[in-house]
Amino acid sequence: MKASVFCATSIDGFLARTDDSIDWLNPYEGDPHGYEEFIATIDAVVLGRRTFEVVLGFPGWHYTKPVFVLSHTLKELHIPEAAQCELLSGDPRDIVATLERRGYHHLYVDGGIVIQQFLRAGLIDRMTITRVPMLLGAGIPLFGALPRELQLHHVATRTYPSGLVQSEYEIKR
Amino acid sequence: MKASVFCATSIDGFLARTDDSIDWLNPYEGDPHGYEEFIATIDAVVLGRRTFEVVLGFPGWHYTKPVFVLSHTLKELHIPEAAQCELLSGDPRDIVATLERRGYHHLYVDGGIVIQQFLRAGLIDRMTITRVPMLLGAGIPLFGALPRELQLHHVATRTYPSGLVQSEYEIKR
Repeated sequence: MKASVFCATSIDGFLARTDDSIDWLNPYEGDPHGYEEFIATIDAVVLGRRTFEVVLGFPGWHYTKPVFVLSHTLKELHIPEAAQCELLSGDPRDIVATLERRGYHHLYVDGGIVIQQFLRAGLIDRMTITRVPMLLGAGIPLFGALPRELQLHHVATRTYPSGLVQSEYEIKR
Repeated sequence: MKASVFCATSIDGFLARTDDSIDWLNPYEGDPHGYEEFIATIDAVVLGRRTFEVVLGFPGWHYTKPVFVLSHTLKELHIPEAAQCELLSGDPRDIVATLERRGYHHLYVDGGIVIQQFLRAGLIDRMTITRVPMLLGAGIPLFGALPRELQLHHVATRTYPSGLVQSEYEIKR
């Protein structure tokens, strides 16, 4: 099983403001930044509960692949019609084992807490981080504590006229 | 007065390990990354006390411009022979006013706490951040809390065969 992160952060490393808002990304939404190409490579999305709730606030349902929402507290999901979406709980290794048994090969892992849990468990293979030219000063961080330092391999960096800088890294296991 | 930051961080935003060590940068020391060109543009260095003590641990004295060490607690500096180095205390605005009066025009601000203080005071004009392909998981962070969000302007990004990615930003005042 392969697992990838594809996310945008402020220069100071935040995925969202403290209130989970990501409207500071709106000015950059118009241009393509490789999201469609990335989505074409994955076969399932693993989301944290908070990220799921942010996504629910958007009009429509923008995922084209099955979505698994991780939560230790939610008992059921209230999902938009036509959304292929399921609740899972367990630690990252259990989640990966479950999804592997169900035939998935490449997970898109999203949400600060979930990304951090998967990184700590050594389960992330690739990270594509798009740096937005802003300092938020506070918010939901992409990264957290790790049990050991991780070496990455820089694959490529792309810059966009809007000021976005997207770097792609492989994590050496 | 202009003030610039020129620093290297891990992908998770740390300038140094928790014990202040930066030996994880050693594999990247051989290649030029624009440091000399940057130093040619500044006329004084403003260092935090902790960064100063890290620098003192290196052989020789590598600064070619006057260095001002900020500390609220140190009473005197024990500096290597031939080092042009002076102790200052005060808040960032006082420091800038003092150095301006003394004829300096472009400061190189270094050290996590001092960079954060200068950013909070709106005194940083340019940041060149070199991202090292590692996740440290803990350490001395480049960024901290801010009184308000800051918009940056992306000037340029350079990538190096070693995997370093250097991005240069102007801060809109």
